[in-house]
Amino acid sequence: MDFNSILNEIKPTESENKEIQDMSRDILDYLTFECEKRNVDAEIFLVGSVSKGTYLKGKSDIDVFISFPLDTPVEELKETGLILGYACSDHFDGEAGEHYASHPYITSKIDKFEVDFVPCYRIRDGSELKSAVDRTILHTNYIKKHLQEYQKDEVLLLKRFMDMTGTYGSEFKVGGFAGYLCELLIIKYGTFENTLNEASNWRYGHVIDLENYGTSKMFKDPLVVIDPTDKNRNVGAALRLDKMAEFIQSARNYLNSDNKLAYFYPIEKNISKDYVIKSFDERGSDVIALQFRIPEIPLDTLHPQLMKTVGSIAERLDGNGFNVFNYGYWTDEESVAIFVFEMANAVLNKVDINKGPKIFIKKACKQFIDAHGIENCFVQDDYLVQAIERKHDTAEGFIDDLLTEKNITKIKVGKNLTESILDSYSFCELEDLVLSDDFWSFCDDLIVPGQYIRR
Amino acid sequence: MDFNSILNEIKPTESENKEIQDMSRDILDYLTFECEKRNVDAEIFLVGSVSKGTYLKGKSDIDVFISFPLDTPVEELKETGLILGYACSDHFDGEAGEHYASHPYITSKIDKFEVDFVPCYRIRDGSELKSAVDRTILHTNYIKKHLQEYQKDEVLLLKRFMDMTGTYGSEFKVGGFAGYLCELLIIKYGTFENTLNEASNWRYGHVIDLENYGTSKMFKDPLVVIDPTDKNRNVGAALRLDKMAEFIQSARNYLNSDNKLAYFYPIEKNISKDYVIKSFDERGSDVIALQFRIPEIPLDTLHPQLMKTVGSIAERLDGNGFNVFNYGYWTDEESVAIFVFEMANAVLNKVDINKGPKIFIKKACKQFIDAHGIENCFVQDDYLVQAIERKHDTAEGFIDDLLTEKNITKIKVGKNLTESILDSYSFCELEDLVLSDDFWSFCDDLIVPGQYIRR
Repeated sequence: MDFNSILNEIKPTESENKEIQDMSRDILDYLTFECEKRNVDAEIFLVGSVSKGTYLKGKSDIDVFISFPLDTPVEELKETGLILGYACSDHFDGEAGEHYASHPYITSKIDKFEVDFVPCYRIRDGSELKSAVDRTILHTNYIKKHLQEYQKDEVLLLKRFMDMTGTYGSEFKVGGFAGYLCELLIIKYGTFENTLNEASNWRYGHVIDLENYGTSKMFKDPLVVIDPTDKNRNVGAALRLDKMAEFIQSARNYLNSDNKLAYFYPIEKNISKDYVIKSFDERGSDVIALQFRIPEIPLDTLHPQLMKTVGSIAERLDGNGFNVFNYGYWTDEESVAIFVFEMANAVLNKVDINKGPKIFIKKACKQFIDAHGIENCFVQDDYLVQAIERKHDTAEGFIDDLLTEKNITKIKVGKNLTESILDSYSFCELEDLVLSDDFWSFCDDLIVPGQYIRR
Repeated sequence: MDFNSILNEIKPTESENKEIQDMSRDILDYLTFECEKRNVDAEIFLVGSVSKGTYLKGKSDIDVFISFPLDTPVEELKETGLILGYACSDHFDGEAGEHYASHPYITSKIDKFEVDFVPCYRIRDGSELKSAVDRTILHTNYIKKHLQEYQKDEVLLLKRFMDMTGTYGSEFKVGGFAGYLCELLIIKYGTFENTLNEASNWRYGHVIDLENYGTSKMFKDPLVVIDPTDKNRNVGAALRLDKMAEFIQSARNYLNSDNKLAYFYPIEKNISKDYVIKSFDERGSDVIALQFRIPEIPLDTLHPQLMKTVGSIAERLDGNGFNVFNYGYWTDEESVAIFVFEMANAVLNKVDINKGPKIFIKKACKQFIDAHGIENCFVQDDYLVQAIERKHDTAEGFIDDLLTEKNITKIKVGKNLTESILDSYSFCELEDLVLSDDFWSFCDDLIVPGQYIRR
């Protein structure tokens, strides 16, 4: 397989690379100088895919780490880090803003580049770790040392393949492979195609232990990749089981395909509102869409909470006789989120059974009858039960009742979402929604799941 | 509580009793004489509730047992038993017919009485048992010896109470209490009301061991009543858990009732077709009724097979996304049976998931894709699945497909029913059915379950 054509498209041009490397060096030089000038005991590092030479064309964020000695008080580290970040941003006429990961950092738009200034501690190995970002410098050093020059292209191919099959990115929205994990896979397996070959045979709990630490037994994750810079950490911990499975099947599909090149390009999608509505209609599915405001919380908090909440509602629907065929959530990540339930059945009859105690527990039976009256009480197997009017014979009515102050505690709602859901949710008809293509693309993914993993 | 009024209604009158005792003695005398005349070594016994004095008014079947020595060849026993039965029937101008339990017996309509002539072996205790009927004489003797005179009325009250609350009768159709079991309960607990008092406190696995055999550990049934004539037999074995539970709750309801007398009379029921159809309609329930011919098999074979079959179909419906609210069967016990399913939901959307193997089993995934094509294949959790058109989006269509030569093996069908179901089943609308009140009463029981256990 000749990858030149695709590499031509995804690999930064020499001039693009020169530009970014120049800018990176200027920033490093400036910060190093500033530290000396201000008598700050900090070292400046370029980290991430730009420094490793494994970034895809157009995805050239510059990650600058300002590392302080381990004995620096955390408040001093934060403050000095922010001051230096702002100073650098100003010096290069950037537009800066503050963000929060494990501690605050500065992001600045400088020229055409997105530059992150991240204060951290200078550690020698994982055991000295003070915050999650501290190990980034160790990661960068490891990759620079062990990834061979020709393998940088292989990393690009793997990242692109994963991106186009929907498995790239360790952020919670995706739950897929991190860039660092891709690089370790190429170090382990040599090339992109060999990685796919090997992955196609992975079993649950597959172990990659480049430094032979022998610590894999510590981890129960589907994929265990011992961090070469920290024997007590699994780089694959954030990889969701379904994303691992999708990658494995994508790899097999690719290896069996006569049209391998297509796996490096986006699929063609149906993203019109009309198509979506017509499709659900042809499938005979009732669709319930529920819209609400989202709170201002980090995306890596928002996404898992949305997923947990929509899943919990679907579970309750299923447990109460309604039949959820598929469900999902979509958010613009700014102001609104929508839960969508595709129902195999959204309407039930109007009678229900209120299950009481076992007949053999006399006192409980007495209490049940005292509470509900003897009317309509009868025996099912060895339970005392009562025939009652079904509280909600439509799925919408059921959800409506669930999303109340009193009942919302019965489901698992992301804790930051409870208030905004209660305050702002409303049911909506798909036809009435005026939303970006991204929403209709999400609906299309519900209608045609798995379209990314095959060509 | 004064039971005289109810006893007046349910207890045979003196003249009725004299008539039946006279007839019984005439039969016994005739048969004893015939045996001597024909040189047959057999003893004649009157057994059952008539001989024990525990029969309800109008339920006066005469049970005559012809008992042979243990060394009689079984063929000789059968033949001689039939000859004697027919001879006796002829002598008294009866209309005789053959029936089959564990071996053949004669039933004859003599005058206004139904007389059974049953050949059996003369055993001294359960260990000598050759067929199920052999122990009947032992039972009769035990009750005659241990049931006190005043307790005969208590037995009548208990039988009547059970009959009116739907728990009397050990035949498979009911699954309730046998007459012998009622008599043992009265021997144990003394009176009708005390039996109810005690039963209201029964737990699962309650043990009654009148002769203190200490063999109760052998049995796992809900109610264990060691047969006083056979320490290895549980008289409660045929009692279904739900019937035991219904009796317990009926007892509690009775004891708490201000209208105890009502428990000795039939409830008022709605048994019109219009009422049934209107009720199902108001409940928003789709009703599926399935009619077929029944084979000529004993009722105690027919009923469990019907119950097993309708339950198995309901289970399959539930397991395939349809929602069965309630179901049951009805039969005229002569030519036809009807399965009725009251559906909470009988329609689904038109798409389905065909679940394939775990992603990690490479070979199985390849076979799945080879068989189904890569189209529509996707990953759910760690399974390879395929989106397909749902084969049946209505419960009726689903059943229709299940009841075919090819698929009927997937459900548990009574083995004597398979052929007649396949040959003759058809769906029917309730409105089109022309059936006895008994069928509409059965439907009413689906609509108002448990109406028998309360007043």
